[in-house]
Amino acid sequence: MNSTVAPNLVAAVSEQRQWNRLMAMAQLGAITGADGSPGVNRPCLSALDREARRLLIGWGEAIGLKPSTDALGNLFLRHEGTEPGLAPVLAGSHMDSQPAGGRFDGIWGVVAALEAVQALHEAKVATRRPIEIVAWTNEEGGRFAPGCMGSMAYAGHRPPDTWDAVTDGEGIRFGDALREQLALEADIPRRSLGAVEGRAPHAYVEAHIEQGPILEAEGLDIGIVTGIQGSRWFLVELAGESAHAGTAPVSTRRDAVQDMVRAITALNGLMADPTDVLRFTVARIEVAPNSSNSVAETVRFTIDFRHPDAAVLTERGDAIEATIRGAVRNCGVQVTERFHALPVEFAPEVTGAVARAAAAQGLAARRMPSGAFHDAQFMVPLCPTGMIFVPSRRGISHNPAEYSSPEQLARGARVLAQVLAELAEG
Amino acid sequence: MNSTVAPNLVAAVSEQRQWNRLMAMAQLGAITGADGSPGVNRPCLSALDREARRLLIGWGEAIGLKPSTDALGNLFLRHEGTEPGLAPVLAGSHMDSQPAGGRFDGIWGVVAALEAVQALHEAKVATRRPIEIVAWTNEEGGRFAPGCMGSMAYAGHRPPDTWDAVTDGEGIRFGDALREQLALEADIPRRSLGAVEGRAPHAYVEAHIEQGPILEAEGLDIGIVTGIQGSRWFLVELAGESAHAGTAPVSTRRDAVQDMVRAITALNGLMADPTDVLRFTVARIEVAPNSSNSVAETVRFTIDFRHPDAAVLTERGDAIEATIRGAVRNCGVQVTERFHALPVEFAPEVTGAVARAAAAQGLAARRMPSGAFHDAQFMVPLCPTGMIFVPSRRGISHNPAEYSSPEQLARGARVLAQVLAELAEG
Repeated sequence: MNSTVAPNLVAAVSEQRQWNRLMAMAQLGAITGADGSPGVNRPCLSALDREARRLLIGWGEAIGLKPSTDALGNLFLRHEGTEPGLAPVLAGSHMDSQPAGGRFDGIWGVVAALEAVQALHEAKVATRRPIEIVAWTNEEGGRFAPGCMGSMAYAGHRPPDTWDAVTDGEGIRFGDALREQLALEADIPRRSLGAVEGRAPHAYVEAHIEQGPILEAEGLDIGIVTGIQGSRWFLVELAGESAHAGTAPVSTRRDAVQDMVRAITALNGLMADPTDVLRFTVARIEVAPNSSNSVAETVRFTIDFRHPDAAVLTERGDAIEATIRGAVRNCGVQVTERFHALPVEFAPEVTGAVARAAAAQGLAARRMPSGAFHDAQFMVPLCPTGMIFVPSRRGISHNPAEYSSPEQLARGARVLAQVLAELAEG
Repeated sequence: MNSTVAPNLVAAVSEQRQWNRLMAMAQLGAITGADGSPGVNRPCLSALDREARRLLIGWGEAIGLKPSTDALGNLFLRHEGTEPGLAPVLAGSHMDSQPAGGRFDGIWGVVAALEAVQALHEAKVATRRPIEIVAWTNEEGGRFAPGCMGSMAYAGHRPPDTWDAVTDGEGIRFGDALREQLALEADIPRRSLGAVEGRAPHAYVEAHIEQGPILEAEGLDIGIVTGIQGSRWFLVELAGESAHAGTAPVSTRRDAVQDMVRAITALNGLMADPTDVLRFTVARIEVAPNSSNSVAETVRFTIDFRHPDAAVLTERGDAIEATIRGAVRNCGVQVTERFHALPVEFAPEVTGAVARAAAAQGLAARRMPSGAFHDAQFMVPLCPTGMIFVPSRRGISHNPAEYSSPEQLARGARVLAQVLAELAEG
């Protein structure tokens, strides 16, 4: 980028404005965590999600950005370039939260992109390329599993109707919730799904809180994200038989809870990792009829398995079903893979730009992989992609106690502004 | 009883009328089981429960029975005796069902009591003592735990406001649901809670399906129930910490699901019983936030533990909390006992009357204990109490596949009619 522009641009990023916007967003679905922390529960495709989108659109329109949505509900705010026909630089993240989530995961990446673009406007920095701020639909997968539906469909990783029949906890289908939202947002111009006119974006940059303890522990400001570990999600369904808890002899039962305990115990063995790099999580369980004196007829539970090494991800992930079948005694078993994202490496064009911006601004940075998956994962095949991390207090995330300071977040937005300015000139 | 009366009375019990009434009741909350069986989901204190109560009242009023309710919503239909001042004989059961329950558990005992009393009317058999048909509130404990609230309060086993703060799966308080029902049934005469004028009933008889396989396996018609095994219910709450499934190292997590697996595995050891007499069941699990990529912060699970030997019930039940505390690694533990019913033995006056009636009617009967608990358990300290079992196909219960034939149920009602006639003369 033009080095004479950077000081103006960096000064135009407002720590207070960005923080105020995050706090305004945090009111939409505000909850209180067990420790009293102020968290957020803003499910994708909910009325709260739509309120957040309208709030964002209003902020964008106030500085002349043009909103549009696509068939998956991905929301774009376009800052025009001096050469509007060039492929745009995309920057953003997501606005949905976990059921008991924090105030920064996802939403900061969207608000930071707006802050960066607003700084470009205020510093009167014109860019050759357009910049599009994007808010991807359903990154979290908290209401409808899996996550990253919006970015997967945009990138052509999966057809857009893949998840229509997925239901939330109340039995509402994703396809129906999406249709309702598109109808309620019919006033927002609709664009075709995917890269405009089939031309890939010039680059994609996502700012995000680290969701891990490394930057804080090392006293750093910026993470130059080098890639994302791979993730595989499975749904396990065990089918037994209900019976009376007082009369049915234990020896004759087909108890789905007991088979779940056997399955998880065996999976703990499969997933044991003395290096503590592997991530294996069972975090969602549904029992039916879920009555204390009726033996469980069915249990559904999820598996979230991640590893940075594709070989480990393949080998152990492929062994999950056989491990479960070898462990259960009395129930029918169905294992369905719901999400499979290979590990990715980010582009040197973007990691280089992040490193340059951090250095130019005198910020302490390091290169690091991402343990969490992000929408950026699916942009990698499309265009040069990268991410910018800022510190998370105690590494806590997916929790109301999630916290990054106004200052830490402003530093991230300043780096993002400079990265966007550079990429949009390229 | 007067042996000249029995043939008339027995002939007046209508197999078809009783079956038709059961099938009419089964429409109120009809569901279809996984195998296509027609089941019932009729939670206590629901609109469906109230429809069932109105249906029963209508049938009773058509033969001159007088309805009344008490502060717990227990419903009575009184058949007057020739000496109205005498303590009545009580007969009945409950009308609520499990969430995925059958068409006979509970409701048959109420319909059979009505059938027996209607047969007394039609056979013109007057009784010295009044007979009161009773439908106890919330025997199942499926919506509000524990079960048997109505009979426990009637018998003075627990104060009537004990369960006011218990909530169902939607957060509705038992006290509020009860208040709503009492308001909606304000037209039904209210009686004081418990034995009328402080005088215990003369006897209590409950007809019920066996909910086990013994009568069917041995080709018998009638179970002369000698007593009920003891039950203890516990709620276990594990408090960990939520975290991001992709970033939080497994070694540092406080994962409530993993501690639940450890706890259940340890409890399986505590509850091991080579004789297969002990019943240990974990059948209700609630995880929060229950999102596949957020490590579980809390898990609540229930324990249903039963045994016919009070010493075993005390010793192993009292060891539950220490067993759990010894097994969990990272979570806070709270164990609350929600229900404690000691084993009971039924009175020879009633078991004798059941045996005499079965023999007089040429039915094949055996003495047997009950594995399930029943409202009868709480009547034992009040008055001579007993139960009549009929066969359950394959012993299946708490399941839409629960089934007893019209003929089997009619045999049970005929024995009940003769037992009531004998006891109401005593």
